[in-house]
Amino acid sequence: MIDLHDDILPFATELADAAGEVALRAFRKPLNVEHKRDSSPVTAIDREIEQLARERIAARFPGHGVRGEELPDTAGEGAYTWVLDPIDGTKGFVTGRPLFGTLIALLEHSRPVLGVIDIPVLAERWVGLSGTTTLNAAVCATSAVTALAEATLYASSPDMFSSAHSPRFDRLSAQTRFRCFGADCYAYGLLASGHTELVAEADMQPYDYMALVPVVENAGGVITDWNGAALTMASDGTVLAAANPTLHRLALACLRD
Amino acid sequence: MIDLHDDILPFATELADAAGEVALRAFRKPLNVEHKRDSSPVTAIDREIEQLARERIAARFPGHGVRGEELPDTAGEGAYTWVLDPIDGTKGFVTGRPLFGTLIALLEHSRPVLGVIDIPVLAERWVGLSGTTTLNAAVCATSAVTALAEATLYASSPDMFSSAHSPRFDRLSAQTRFRCFGADCYAYGLLASGHTELVAEADMQPYDYMALVPVVENAGGVITDWNGAALTMASDGTVLAAANPTLHRLALACLRD
Repeated sequence: MIDLHDDILPFATELADAAGEVALRAFRKPLNVEHKRDSSPVTAIDREIEQLARERIAARFPGHGVRGEELPDTAGEGAYTWVLDPIDGTKGFVTGRPLFGTLIALLEHSRPVLGVIDIPVLAERWVGLSGTTTLNAAVCATSAVTALAEATLYASSPDMFSSAHSPRFDRLSAQTRFRCFGADCYAYGLLASGHTELVAEADMQPYDYMALVPVVENAGGVITDWNGAALTMASDGTVLAAANPTLHRLALACLRD
Repeated sequence: MIDLHDDILPFATELADAAGEVALRAFRKPLNVEHKRDSSPVTAIDREIEQLARERIAARFPGHGVRGEELPDTAGEGAYTWVLDPIDGTKGFVTGRPLFGTLIALLEHSRPVLGVIDIPVLAERWVGLSGTTTLNAAVCATSAVTALAEATLYASSPDMFSSAHSPRFDRLSAQTRFRCFGADCYAYGLLASGHTELVAEADMQPYDYMALVPVVENAGGVITDWNGAALTMASDGTVLAAANPTLHRLALACLRD
C-alpha cells in the first residue's frame, strides 16, 4: 500500500531535485547553442531528464506507468501513472529566461493526486497534494478576487491559440484588468500563490497540464478545459485555471464557444 | 569634470541598490493588491522609487536634468540628463513575476553614455558603459548568430503593436527560429549576454529604452528604431535590438514599412 505523503512525496522531491540539477548544468551554457539549431529546442536535455526520471521510477515503483514528453509510454500494472514534462517552457530555457520548470504529476487511475511545478533557477517549488499546496514548504492560497475586472490573466503566448480559440481568449481578456504573456508553467504557480487570478491556454498536452491540477486545486483554485470539464489524458488541450469557483464560472462564460 | 567610471558608475550603482530595496519590499506583498486596483499598476511604488532617485541626483549632481516615468521633468543646466524607469514591467511586478527591473540611463547631451538594467529579485544587473557591458561585473557579449533562421526574437507583448506595426513584427517573426513574449527589459539583458538575438518592440517611451542603448551597444549589439535611426528622446517608440550589425540589417529589412 502506497502512502502519498510518506512514499510518493519524498520520491517526487528527489525526482525534481535530480531534474533541476541536469537543467541547471545546461542552462545558459554554450551547449544550448547547439540545441538551438535542433528542430526542437533542448530536446537532448529534455530526454536526459526524462530518461533519468524513468529509471528512478522503474527502480522504486516498477509497476507504475509513465507518460512523458520525449519517450514512449510505459504501461503500468496498477492504479498509478506518472506524467512528466522534463522542461516546460523550452523557448524560455534556450533563451536564458529562468521561468522554465519541470512538471511532475502522479495519477491514481485517471485522477492527478500529486502535482509538482519546480523552477530550478529560482529555487521555487510548488507541490499540490492531499488538500494543501505549498511553495517551498509554505502553504499557499489563491486570490480572493471574484470580479473579472479586478483579475489579471496569463497565457504563455498568443501563438498557442488557433483561429477558433483566439477570439474566445480575446473576449476573456477584454473583461479582465489586464493580460500578460510569457510565463509557461510559472503562471500556474503565481496563481496558486495568489499573485494572478486566471490562466487560459490552448494546444496543451497532458504532460503540460496534469501536474498543474493538484497545484491549482489544493490552493483553492479551479482548473478545467474551456468547456468546464475536468482535465484528463484525452482532453482537447484547452486549459482554464481560476483562483476560485466564482472567477472560473465568469471566465468560462467568456471562453465557451 | 565628471568621470564616468569614478563618479557616475558608483552613484548609479547606489541608485539601483536603493530602487531595488523599495521594489523588493513591495514585491508579492498584500500592498500590491491595493495597487492592482489603481488605474496604473504599482504607481505608488514607481513614484516612491523615482522620488528617492531624484532626491539623490539633486543632492549629488544638482545641475543634472532628470526625465522619469512618473514625475515632471527637471531641466538640467549642463550636458547631463538622467532618464529613469523605476519599475519597467509593472504588469509582471503586480502579478509576482520576477523579471521586472529598474532602468537608469545617463545622457551626455542627447547620447546615452551609461545604461543600467537592474533585476532586483534575481540579483542580476547589466551595466553598459565606455565600451563594456557587464552582468554582475562579468563582461558579457552578444550572440555571433548572423542568420535570421537561427535567431530568436523577443517582445514584451503583441499588445504593444498597432495595426500598422503588427504585420511588420509578424514578417520578422516568420523569418526567425521562434518568437517569445514576456520579458520586458529583461529581454535586452538576455540579448547583451548572448542568449537571444533580437528584440523588437513598439509603443516605448524614452525611459523604457534609453538605458537599453549602452547595455546593448557595449555588448556588441545594435539598437535603433524600426527605420534604423538612433534612439533619441523624440524617437517614434519603435525599438529594434540585434546581436550584431548583420542581424540588425536583416531584421530591419523585415520591419521597414
